[in-house]
Amino acid sequence: MQKFIIEENYFNNLTLPDDLIYQCVKVLRYKKGNTFLVCVNKINYLVEITDIKEKSLNYKIIEELNIDTELSVDVTIIQGYPKGDKFEDIIKYATQLGANTFIPLLAKRTQFKIDDKRASTKIARFNKIAKEASEQSMRNIIPEVTNFKKLSDIDFNSYNYVLVCYEETSKEQKHEGLKDIFKNLNKEDKIAILIGPEGGIDESEIAYLKKYSNTYLVSLGKRILRTELAPLTILSMLVYESELL
Amino acid sequence: MQKFIIEENYFNNLTLPDDLIYQCVKVLRYKKGNTFLVCVNKINYLVEITDIKEKSLNYKIIEELNIDTELSVDVTIIQGYPKGDKFEDIIKYATQLGANTFIPLLAKRTQFKIDDKRASTKIARFNKIAKEASEQSMRNIIPEVTNFKKLSDIDFNSYNYVLVCYEETSKEQKHEGLKDIFKNLNKEDKIAILIGPEGGIDESEIAYLKKYSNTYLVSLGKRILRTELAPLTILSMLVYESELL
Repeated sequence: MQKFIIEENYFNNLTLPDDLIYQCVKVLRYKKGNTFLVCVNKINYLVEITDIKEKSLNYKIIEELNIDTELSVDVTIIQGYPKGDKFEDIIKYATQLGANTFIPLLAKRTQFKIDDKRASTKIARFNKIAKEASEQSMRNIIPEVTNFKKLSDIDFNSYNYVLVCYEETSKEQKHEGLKDIFKNLNKEDKIAILIGPEGGIDESEIAYLKKYSNTYLVSLGKRILRTELAPLTILSMLVYESELL
Repeated sequence: MQKFIIEENYFNNLTLPDDLIYQCVKVLRYKKGNTFLVCVNKINYLVEITDIKEKSLNYKIIEELNIDTELSVDVTIIQGYPKGDKFEDIIKYATQLGANTFIPLLAKRTQFKIDDKRASTKIARFNKIAKEASEQSMRNIIPEVTNFKKLSDIDFNSYNYVLVCYEETSKEQKHEGLKDIFKNLNKEDKIAILIGPEGGIDESEIAYLKKYSNTYLVSLGKRILRTELAPLTILSMLVYESELL
């Protein structure tokens, strides 16, 4: 069933923002009597269309639904900005797996020259992808994609854990750590997951991160994973530990 | 470091197949003295080039290396054939996560009309992707992609477990099962993971699969995952349970 995450003011007037009205009328071709879900402040309602015209739409509330689709912890993906469209795929899939925030990291080995105009267009597009992925996967919040950041722009002290996916840890077959961390998480812990771009995280960046006592270098198994796969793998592991009984 | 998985006859002559010689000469621009890895019958050797010409290459063995990068169990991904290029991404990423066999499944909701000529071109391409992903992720075997199959073509009795990722299980919040199965796996167990195409697995297909006593309907968490994400998620969970100490 179609789900829209909307702001309170639209819900108070039993309507939708203009772009979603357009989508209902032109794309989904809804008629009076069609039902869909709206999510406001993380609460879901089944609603039924009472009136639909080219540029207006009203609905009535059928019932409040208890849909719990959020991870028990708050995950930020700090992703070394990769080549091509990979970051868009990461947002799409990591949103399906429950991530709440994405920080595109201008890492030492990121091969991307930023200019302000292009950057703001990209960030707007990234946030649109996060919204769509969130609604499609039936989540209750829309993840935020922040502006491009450098390592020194990030307040690592604001997280309970900073998990750095580090290939060298894998090569040395040092696999301890991640399970212990995941098994001991508390509800609403804030977790940052940091992944390097193609070519990995530079040693100077590792040294910088190690200054924080909440930093853990973790391995995701015995094989070398591409940068765009690593965030999905560690999130899947977190889902396994925290959601499957 | 570059790794090539090759047949024994090339290794016995301390050389490589023609396409890999081409790659060494023209793409990697190797010279005498450069080193790389060759993997023969799951054993890895560090080798050094002793002679390289436009169409010939010889090397000497420096040392045998103990590189264990295979999952402890044998995983077959039976994937409801999805739209577009998604199956290629699934092969690429699931190979990095350790899958050994891929079966492109012509499921009831697969929207793909097969013709024999196009199919064989596709299968050849899929196997090439599996080979490249395997070498890049430092694996010791090349996964096989079989021909397109229907559900009735598959011998489900040949697996210890047939794990069916079923969205309805997720909606009903029935999450039991997967952890118990993963925790109790034996070395070299054969596991089939079955994932529906877009639109999911049809109820009649579920009924067919349920006839096998080794079939388990499993959930991958509380959110709806896209078909191309599901195999990566369940493989990541398997890696977590079986490789991280």
